[in-house]
Amino acid sequence: MTPIFFLLAFLISTINSHVAAIDFCVADLKGAQTSVGYPCKLPKDVTVNDFVFSNFTNGAPNQFNFSFTPAIVDNFPALNGLGFSFAKVELEEGATVPMHAHPDATEVVIAGSGPAKYTTGFITSDNVVYTKTLSEGDIFVIPKGLLHFGINTGKGKASGLAVFSSEKPSIQVLDLALFGNKLDSSIVEKTTFLDAAQVKKLKALFKGSG
Amino acid sequence: MTPIFFLLAFLISTINSHVAAIDFCVADLKGAQTSVGYPCKLPKDVTVNDFVFSNFTNGAPNQFNFSFTPAIVDNFPALNGLGFSFAKVELEEGATVPMHAHPDATEVVIAGSGPAKYTTGFITSDNVVYTKTLSEGDIFVIPKGLLHFGINTGKGKASGLAVFSSEKPSIQVLDLALFGNKLDSSIVEKTTFLDAAQVKKLKALFKGSG
Amino acid sequence: MTPIFFLLAFLISTINSHVAAIDFCVADLKGAQTSVGYPCKLPKDVTVNDFVFSNFTNGAPNQFNFSFTPAIVDNFPALNGLGFSFAKVELEEGATVPMHAHPDATEVVIAGSGPAKYTTGFITSDNVVYTKTLSEGDIFVIPKGLLHFGINTGKGKASGLAVFSSEKPSIQVLDLALFGNKLDSSIVEKTTFLDAAQVKKLKALFKGSG
Amino acid sequence: MTPIFFLLAFLISTINSHVAAIDFCVADLKGAQTSVGYPCKLPKDVTVNDFVFSNFTNGAPNQFNFSFTPAIVDNFPALNGLGFSFAKVELEEGATVPMHAHPDATEVVIAGSGPAKYTTGFITSDNVVYTKTLSEGDIFVIPKGLLHFGINTGKGKASGLAVFSSEKPSIQVLDLALFGNKLDSSIVEKTTFLDAAQVKKLKALFKGSG
Amino acid sequence: MTPIFFLLAFLISTINSHVAAIDFCVADLKGAQTSVGYPCKLPKDVTVNDFVFSNFTNGAPNQFNFSFTPAIVDNFPALNGLGFSFAKVELEEGATVPMHAHPDATEVVIAGSGPAKYTTGFITSDNVVYTKTLSEGDIFVIPKGLLHFGINTGKGKASGLAVFSSEKPSIQVLDLALFGNKLDSSIVEKTTFLDAAQVKKLKALFKGSG
Amino acid sequence: MTPIFFLLAFLISTINSHVAAIDFCVADLKGAQTSVGYPCKLPKDVTVNDFVFSNFTNGAPNQFNFSFTPAIVDNFPALNGLGFSFAKVELEEGATVPMHAHPDATEVVIAGSGPAKYTTGFITSDNVVYTKTLSEGDIFVIPKGLLHFGINTGKGKASGLAVFSSEKPSIQVLDLALFGNKLDSSIVEKTTFLDAAQVKKLKALFKGSG
Repeated sequence: MTPIFFLLAFLISTINSHVAAIDFCVADLKGAQTSVGYPCKLPKDVTVNDFVFSNFTNGAPNQFNFSFTPAIVDNFPALNGLGFSFAKVELEEGATVPMHAHPDATEVVIAGSGPAKYTTGFITSDNVVYTKTLSEGDIFVIPKGLLHFGINTGKGKASGLAVFSSEKPSIQVLDLALFGNKLDSSIVEKTTFLDAAQVKKLKALFKGSG
Repeated sequence: MTPIFFLLAFLISTINSHVAAIDFCVADLKGAQTSVGYPCKLPKDVTVNDFVFSNFTNGAPNQFNFSFTPAIVDNFPALNGLGFSFAKVELEEGATVPMHAHPDATEVVIAGSGPAKYTTGFITSDNVVYTKTLSEGDIFVIPKGLLHFGINTGKGKASGLAVFSSEKPSIQVLDLALFGNKLDSSIVEKTTFLDAAQVKKLKALFKGSG
Repeated sequence: MTPIFFLLAFLISTINSHVAAIDFCVADLKGAQTSVGYPCKLPKDVTVNDFVFSNFTNGAPNQFNFSFTPAIVDNFPALNGLGFSFAKVELEEGATVPMHAHPDATEVVIAGSGPAKYTTGFITSDNVVYTKTLSEGDIFVIPKGLLHFGINTGKGKASGLAVFSSEKPSIQVLDLALFGNKLDSSIVEKTTFLDAAQVKKLKALFKGSG
Repeated sequence: MTPIFFLLAFLISTINSHVAAIDFCVADLKGAQTSVGYPCKLPKDVTVNDFVFSNFTNGAPNQFNFSFTPAIVDNFPALNGLGFSFAKVELEEGATVPMHAHPDATEVVIAGSGPAKYTTGFITSDNVVYTKTLSEGDIFVIPKGLLHFGINTGKGKASGLAVFSSEKPSIQVLDLALFGNKLDSSIVEKTTFLDAAQVKKLKALFKGSG
Repeated sequence: MTPIFFLLAFLISTINSHVAAIDFCVADLKGAQTSVGYPCKLPKDVTVNDFVFSNFTNGAPNQFNFSFTPAIVDNFPALNGLGFSFAKVELEEGATVPMHAHPDATEVVIAGSGPAKYTTGFITSDNVVYTKTLSEGDIFVIPKGLLHFGINTGKGKASGLAVFSSEKPSIQVLDLALFGNKLDSSIVEKTTFLDAAQVKKLKALFKGSG
Repeated sequence: MTPIFFLLAFLISTINSHVAAIDFCVADLKGAQTSVGYPCKLPKDVTVNDFVFSNFTNGAPNQFNFSFTPAIVDNFPALNGLGFSFAKVELEEGATVPMHAHPDATEVVIAGSGPAKYTTGFITSDNVVYTKTLSEGDIFVIPKGLLHFGINTGKGKASGLAVFSSEKPSIQVLDLALFGNKLDSSIVEKTTFLDAAQVKKLKALFKGSG
């Protein structure tokens, strides 16, 4: 018995030499990107493991004493075209996530286990500060593109899950943007009102030149 | 006389070695799909026949005694990027279209000629049933992703036109999903509360294994 | 000092008697919904707590021995217009999440702590089964609108976080759709090929009539 | 038995005094429109008849000897937010549908019964003409916003179904736009290169002034 | 010091042999177009000059005595995926921009320096005329797809900037569409109600045949 | 003569007590905003002046010695739902536009008359600086959400037009976000690595507290 319902899939596969995708579009990372992501992997090449991301554990802490482990379309192709991605974040006691923004993604933080200790906040474009110390399981929404930060203000590690409204969120870290590249110091001073000495000190710290 | 207005099209064609598409994007079915469809056929290769679908007649009835004839982007490339497609459906007297859903498309049914005889219905996610016997020319909307069915409850054939809010609608037929593949019988039983004997009987009917 | 930059916000607030929203659109749940969500709460009425969801803990298990705790726009208005939402799921040992689909949302499951024990799977519209037993921290993508299930196949509880690509995901549970309402038994039989006895038994179990 | 699955719908209805819409957004035509349509009717007020349009029959022919019967969101609220609508068109023998465009909708024409007799065509923005005489059941795609026309070039009536990629398509009829309003004749002449006598004649025919 | 923040970009570049685009998608004009534009140029090949368009000066007047200079995705690839584009327009004294429409773009005109002299207008699909003589700096919105025109009704040149809601707006000029191609004269007459002599005269003027 | 074409508009107006909008959706600023803007003004209340913005001249310079004059949906309702807006910017000789970002809008700058003098630049999320001194008429694209700045590096005033990919762009000015509000100084220091003295100095300059 080959019900007519099979015919639609059959029709597609016979008409289209590529065997058309239905239901999903797993990224073919070798294909050329467009503004909506990657081309679809051919269904015949898709296995259940394309839908599974198995390395979502905390990485090693960086110099800021926190780890950031992303699961985005480039390492988890099943996210292609879905418009969201994930990251695990773990802060050592006293660690700080520096002021940064995600130019085209809203971020949602889900606080991990333990007592209230993760203090986070964002600043709106009319300069209002929204800050909160999160308890275990709290969910916090950080609107798209706004400067925000995080601090472990408690005892022991603070962990959390970040969900982004983009399958490939970008991160603009304030200090790296200002001091970690070749942007001319005089321009930094003029456009930020920072003192020359301060700029020089941070350029050195963040390995910038100019 | 070559009015300046020609210059825009001219500019595009001279700048872009591909001769850019304007006005439409007929599918190049050999191109790699993205989550928004196929690449555009080069306008120089497009003829009026790309905009015409000429085989939209009823097909042969299947074992369920109805025919399903789709006009979708894979056999009618002019639908690329438009977000809708079509199908002709014809039910023999007494025929039934089994319970199914279109995972990412709303369906609109336009009942064909003849007396009221096409009984259709859908079930919402809060389990309310909306059912109706359609008269000639009635239009019926089936919201996206919901289980629905159709039965010819009258005399003679019942025909209709289906319009889908996707240029490539997929169809998940309940019995095929549960019984027409390798899904383990014990999982089917556990997750549907069906008796083992019932599952075994339908696995046999729909050529499933496991 | 009142930098000109303030003028944009000022301009907006003086022109528009509502004080226009910038940066975010927290839901005014009393407002009339459109196909894109709720109207925006007036910024003057928004506080940091609108961005925090504080009740994201496991609820009591249901008759199926699992709990489902949603954080969606209707109980977490900051999700308005963002296109995603969350749920905590916890299965007692041996518990099963019955076959169901989300008519207009992709689901991503992030497996909670403990050894591999959460077995899940989905069925595509061309009837291919993708199933996997997840280990702690695994992320699994379930494409939009497809039938899927979950079973705790290990020792002890199995917990997870579900992320949906909709701020208000709907859930169509197969057995409730077929047996938990007034859908006529003869229609259920005709459209699913189930035996009358089986339908009668499950109608009784799920409190359906007809 | 009240399965936990009911809780999501229950939660929504208890939290939100409006009983939130899930699955669909039938238009509340009394509500204020936005650029994405009308607010949603409250689900408690929705019946199966909201999903049925029952007056889809040919209307009386107009002075151009054809009838145009629309099924759009304003007379079929279930189309709200779906992005498509329908119209029945019937041309008397020899009738012509004048040159017109749909400013923000692609049109798909499905030719009705009878021998090849409906000649239609569109003109692209680089001035290429695509014209075709359609046979019964042919589907023809007219790209968004382009000037197009239709003529019954056969014996007897010619009928068809039009599908638009907008739930509220607008129609700009060339002669009405130029001659059926107060647009100053000298401006019409200057901007169309038509002779004054020709403009005067058509202004009279289409009841324009100026 | 290599802050963890670098890791996201690093991760992307190492996983994806193409070095994934973040932040922007400059068009690779040699790539195959889709309905959402061109593929992205590889970031390693992007320079600051990709973000600069340097030839935005008035061109030579055409036979209608005005110049039209577009900056669209095909000559300014940084506009890829942004959904808008620009054109400079300059009318000699007394010049007219003939009746035309942009099938899929709203146009915004910003009047250039000088006294009020640019008279423009559009006609809605219910045949209402909206016309205005613009003063220096006035901004005028022309809704998508509607017929509109412009006339220099003052002394000296009239210039302006046009912004389109499409990175590749198309232009359908009424006279060229009707008279500048092979569209059969009898069809033009039938569908526009123009006299044969008038059609013949304009076919000659706009170099059409048929 | 009342051609059938009038019937569509007529039908809409008779069915819908609001007289439905077709062709455009001018903002009713008194209506409740949604994530896609304002409700539509009733067409009967719309005049040609709704499509005209007449106050688009340079304002007075601020303390930074430049003027910023926006034309956005809140003062130009015709922009509702269009997704773009405008601003005139004029810098006195030597003036600087401080480092800032538009959280959800791409900005396009069109340099005004005069010799090359407007030096602008943006920093990507992988910390690459793209900077350019613009000549008259140059168009420069600043990708969404990225930090950017502008400096008048020439003689005399420098003016320009800014186009934003949002009808209501927000502006996050770095110094105001860090120093112009109640954000605790110790948090600013921790999250930016700035010295306490520097923070104190700028808090004083930008009237911040905490």
